[in-house]
Amino acid sequence: MHSFQIVTPDRGIATALQEKIDRKTKPLGALGQLEAVARRIGLIQQTLSPRLERPHMLVFAGDHGAARAGVSAYPQEVTWQMVENFLAGGAAINVFCRQSGVGLSVVDAGVAHDFGGPREGLIDAKIAPGTGSYLDGSAMSAAQCAQAVEQGAGIVLGLAAAGCNVLGLGEMGIGNTASASLITHCLTGVPLADCVGRGTGLDDAGLARKQALLQQALARYRGAGGDDDASKVLAEFGGFEIAGMVGAMLAAAEAKMVLLIDGFIVGSAALVASRLVPEVLEYCIFCHRSPEPGHAVQLAAMAAEPLLDLGLRLGEGTGAVLAYPLVNAAVAFLNEMASFESAGVSGKA
Amino acid sequence: MHSFQIVTPDRGIATALQEKIDRKTKPLGALGQLEAVARRIGLIQQTLSPRLERPHMLVFAGDHGAARAGVSAYPQEVTWQMVENFLAGGAAINVFCRQSGVGLSVVDAGVAHDFGGPREGLIDAKIAPGTGSYLDGSAMSAAQCAQAVEQGAGIVLGLAAAGCNVLGLGEMGIGNTASASLITHCLTGVPLADCVGRGTGLDDAGLARKQALLQQALARYRGAGGDDDASKVLAEFGGFEIAGMVGAMLAAAEAKMVLLIDGFIVGSAALVASRLVPEVLEYCIFCHRSPEPGHAVQLAAMAAEPLLDLGLRLGEGTGAVLAYPLVNAAVAFLNEMASFESAGVSGKA
Repeated sequence: MHSFQIVTPDRGIATALQEKIDRKTKPLGALGQLEAVARRIGLIQQTLSPRLERPHMLVFAGDHGAARAGVSAYPQEVTWQMVENFLAGGAAINVFCRQSGVGLSVVDAGVAHDFGGPREGLIDAKIAPGTGSYLDGSAMSAAQCAQAVEQGAGIVLGLAAAGCNVLGLGEMGIGNTASASLITHCLTGVPLADCVGRGTGLDDAGLARKQALLQQALARYRGAGGDDDASKVLAEFGGFEIAGMVGAMLAAAEAKMVLLIDGFIVGSAALVASRLVPEVLEYCIFCHRSPEPGHAVQLAAMAAEPLLDLGLRLGEGTGAVLAYPLVNAAVAFLNEMASFESAGVSGKA
Repeated sequence: MHSFQIVTPDRGIATALQEKIDRKTKPLGALGQLEAVARRIGLIQQTLSPRLERPHMLVFAGDHGAARAGVSAYPQEVTWQMVENFLAGGAAINVFCRQSGVGLSVVDAGVAHDFGGPREGLIDAKIAPGTGSYLDGSAMSAAQCAQAVEQGAGIVLGLAAAGCNVLGLGEMGIGNTASASLITHCLTGVPLADCVGRGTGLDDAGLARKQALLQQALARYRGAGGDDDASKVLAEFGGFEIAGMVGAMLAAAEAKMVLLIDGFIVGSAALVASRLVPEVLEYCIFCHRSPEPGHAVQLAAMAAEPLLDLGLRLGEGTGAVLAYPLVNAAVAFLNEMASFESAGVSGKA
């Protein structure tokens, strides 16, 4: 893949940003996490008056060879069925995007299904009809992985050219919490067992089976000399949808867009992206704390503090779009609130 | 005050509500706290297809006699200055209400200032120009307290008549975290020291002074035979803005409106209201967890789990209006999401 040029936002404006925030008619720090969001976006856009333009959600979908081995509570067909649901407007992410005025496109990064030609709202970036099973070998080749990253990047460059400067990422792929667990383990060193959870609803027996299968996949990879290089781990265990999101994040940060990061699966892509180019994290707003145990591991590794903790566990980018009104509120208070001076309000005694 | 007739919502519809939620195209329970909000609103409105109509925020403002003794980091004048800021549209609550399409009215429940006749956006319900200081005696008389409750109730009945069925409550009153601390202690029995915090930003010395003053007020009340009757505690330590919110909550629940409860001060009004008529809690959605230590005490007493935890500490109802898009999202998913059957999506394997 090509090398992404992501700059660390110039801190020169930081003092002026903080002063503008502190002069607002409120006690110091009283807007809590919204103040941190306002600072971040001001830095990204290098202005005291940032604007969020044409917010857009990209939902990357892909199938996983390992899903057929039983790492999920749902059959693999649910991936394409849910893509159809997205295209028909009936899923949670559709409802929430409509509500918040966020555009939505679905990316077929590698679903094991033929959607029958061009479809409204669907971007065809299919690498293959599902990855291979990492129980037997690498989920994708290095070339496929690079292709998925580049396609994700390309889509984002198109959105940026159309005036979008705030991008949410979401995903759909039966079996992809398993991929995210393996990636999280390899890139953080936290024991695999502590990175594996129930996904969309495994019972105790299902969770035990998932744990055993993932330990088996990891043993195979280690046995073949597999290391913790982020690109290799992504190709070995990733889904095409995860690789696509890695490219989307890197391109978005390169284009100085604000990135809305959802929960555990999107977090695994952020973790990979941040190992490839650490500066990408300067462009990320973490939106929702997933109940999946591996998500806490990722957040600690990226020193991230999400805005929401609602117990959501369905992916699709729902946590990101539900947090968008808060991100919007952070920008709005920075631009619209009066200052102590302009409002004639007394300061602290 | 008159007796409020608040019904417990009929549970007959609960099973059908849960079935509708469980048939949506998502894993069981995957929308987390939004599912609890959807159930609550469906019960309140006794329908599987609830609607939120003409959302409105009432910000009750009042001054506190005890504020002049030094229980706050800010001078008392900030109360009326902030009311002017609300009327000019420059405060945080104005920005967030505009952003979410929530109507806003400010209620002068007892500000120590003459606003100079009728003003656009200001409801004149002034009982007196500030309460008396609870360091010397009761903050208000029983008659004043009842009057404040009745006025708060009356305003809400007007909003309900105009078609509003979802009401947010907020407040402004220098010194009112102190009132909330005293009320929280008296109604829960948790030691006063554990109910007192820094409010809008007291330093260590200021916090120690506030603790000492409130212990002194409590000792005076107990010495005079004061008990834990909710109405008496409200009159003894309350502000007019807190009493007004108690009436507003009771009337809103009587009118079967959805109530959006902000942080610590609004929480103290909810605690009083729930001691007067426990059923009021069936109509409440708790919106933000305040960093004030007394708020955790209140939430435990009311078995409440707020939607947001953003470290906000400025009141005005900001936590309630920032949570409103989530409340709206809960209703939207219930009404708009496809079911497994309608979308042709497979269930669990």
